[in-house]
Amino acid sequence: MNKTPDVVKAAPLSEQTVITDFFEPLTQGDKSALGLLDDAALIDIPDNHELVVTKDILVAGTHFFADDPPADIGHKALAVNLSDLAAKGAAPRCYLLALALDKTCGEAWLRAFASGLGALQRVHGCRLIGGDTVVTGGPLAISITAFGLVPRGTMVKRGGAQPGDPIYVTGTVGDAALGLKIRSQIPDYSKWELEDSAVQYLVSRYLRPQPRLALIPYLRQYATASIDISDGLLGDFQKLCSVSGVGGTIEESRIPFSEPARKCLDRDPGLFDTLVSGGDDYEILFAVNADARDAFEKDVAGLDFPVAFVGLIAKEGEDCGIAGADGHIRAFDHVSYDHFG
Amino acid sequence: MNKTPDVVKAAPLSEQTVITDFFEPLTQGDKSALGLLDDAALIDIPDNHELVVTKDILVAGTHFFADDPPADIGHKALAVNLSDLAAKGAAPRCYLLALALDKTCGEAWLRAFASGLGALQRVHGCRLIGGDTVVTGGPLAISITAFGLVPRGTMVKRGGAQPGDPIYVTGTVGDAALGLKIRSQIPDYSKWELEDSAVQYLVSRYLRPQPRLALIPYLRQYATASIDISDGLLGDFQKLCSVSGVGGTIEESRIPFSEPARKCLDRDPGLFDTLVSGGDDYEILFAVNADARDAFEKDVAGLDFPVAFVGLIAKEGEDCGIAGADGHIRAFDHVSYDHFG
Repeated sequence: MNKTPDVVKAAPLSEQTVITDFFEPLTQGDKSALGLLDDAALIDIPDNHELVVTKDILVAGTHFFADDPPADIGHKALAVNLSDLAAKGAAPRCYLLALALDKTCGEAWLRAFASGLGALQRVHGCRLIGGDTVVTGGPLAISITAFGLVPRGTMVKRGGAQPGDPIYVTGTVGDAALGLKIRSQIPDYSKWELEDSAVQYLVSRYLRPQPRLALIPYLRQYATASIDISDGLLGDFQKLCSVSGVGGTIEESRIPFSEPARKCLDRDPGLFDTLVSGGDDYEILFAVNADARDAFEKDVAGLDFPVAFVGLIAKEGEDCGIAGADGHIRAFDHVSYDHFG
Repeated sequence: MNKTPDVVKAAPLSEQTVITDFFEPLTQGDKSALGLLDDAALIDIPDNHELVVTKDILVAGTHFFADDPPADIGHKALAVNLSDLAAKGAAPRCYLLALALDKTCGEAWLRAFASGLGALQRVHGCRLIGGDTVVTGGPLAISITAFGLVPRGTMVKRGGAQPGDPIYVTGTVGDAALGLKIRSQIPDYSKWELEDSAVQYLVSRYLRPQPRLALIPYLRQYATASIDISDGLLGDFQKLCSVSGVGGTIEESRIPFSEPARKCLDRDPGLFDTLVSGGDDYEILFAVNADARDAFEKDVAGLDFPVAFVGLIAKEGEDCGIAGADGHIRAFDHVSYDHFG
């Protein structure tokens, strides 16, 4: 890597120390990592499997706050990629980490960041195998590439939903959007009159999304199409329908909201748009083969997160959106987050 | 992706337009990309092959100048990753691109950036299959993950060099370090008295490194260890020796310098350190099985870039460095680039 003169130097660390002390332990001895001592990593794919790959880039000030707890930043950077793998029915195998540190990221920051990655990777059996660490004038930027495995031909795609397929969503929707508002200290959140525990819950949903990896076997077995909700329920639903070439309706009354979110909505009904279009949910929205609905619902009843039926896929050309109590599709000013929007 | 309030908006583009107009053409219809319409990409690995993966992050102001020609930025971002694959004997297959744009990157910038990627990928048969595009308050950051294939067990690692193995390097060393000095307009480069064509050559070596992919079959057949030179000949040589558990000597007189670099060195002998430790060469440094030396040299004679014999691997515990005309290892103040150094 070359360098122009404005590189900021973090005092006592060396590139080698950072790799040895903080990142090598995250390989957990995985052979693919080659001890983080080579130009590249090496992945051996079991016969009759395919590799599912996903990549995000998160930048301080845009995707997270520079002063978010570093363990939470590490957790989230990996979680959002594991969520993509989960939505595709892919079992996490390993990941690459590219880190552009800024000068404020010293040893304590790195240790906490690595602990956030480590705690999540150990839950899901996924190891660091390589990457790149640089120091810049800021802001902090993190790019993770995550790798998952599927038996050949079993990846669950966005396209594939058929008219009549029931639609489901994991967990609850909109918590993270509220958590972000609280974390941003927008002045009017006091009117939601939340208890401390509710505030904590919503902020934690923003800071530490939980990738729904336990859903993977059921997605592979039953799902016709699937997407992870990163840009908001409504916008991501419309993407799934568009790629599948279908329409569809989510019933407003069936959208799963948490207790704290429901309380906010009671106090401030205008928040509905935020809840369904704010993004950052990292829940999974998917359609299931209509014939398998009963079997699917029975199978997922034992999961430790809810899976809610929310609506039905319709034919191409029909509307795609959220229907109110009157059965009509609601209009929204703002469908989902667009970085260019 | 979530967003805090300081997201900068680039006027008339939408995320979808950017993907459709600039990036989808770079998939060249590769099925793995799923039309850039899914949460992830899908790579099918041929039987008895392994996947070699490498990832870099480049940030404006650190790894390149924000006002470098965008086609050159695109070229370089991909080239440095292809260089890693080449060093490992891996045939490029595809890549992921994560792009954190800043507000100055409009349509014309994106078109030129994509053209730089496109021109290089078409030469080497490597296609875009996915990634992530976001807009931030800057600076521009680019992370590429590149994927290459090797027949199982044939990846050329850094470790593996044996005492007595001859050492080779492709192309010429140090041009990019001089190009960077010229590009940075350091005041004393006028004393090098370079002709315009030499200036152009050196800057071009900095801006547009050429990954040495034609070397791949010969590395697989003959090399015992290999590294791509990104942090400087000397430092990367020491890394190769350290991982291989050997010593070794590169003979100063055999280091291949270009005519322009040699001219600079004649005028300013103090530049020697810059040439061997400045980095950004993206040439390949490797050791060859001693018994195969003649066959190897015959085989690579027809390549369209030079491959120079520069020294020999020695036993563990012996020195590792560059020997002057007197046969002694030279001392350097600064061995190679360290982001934390």
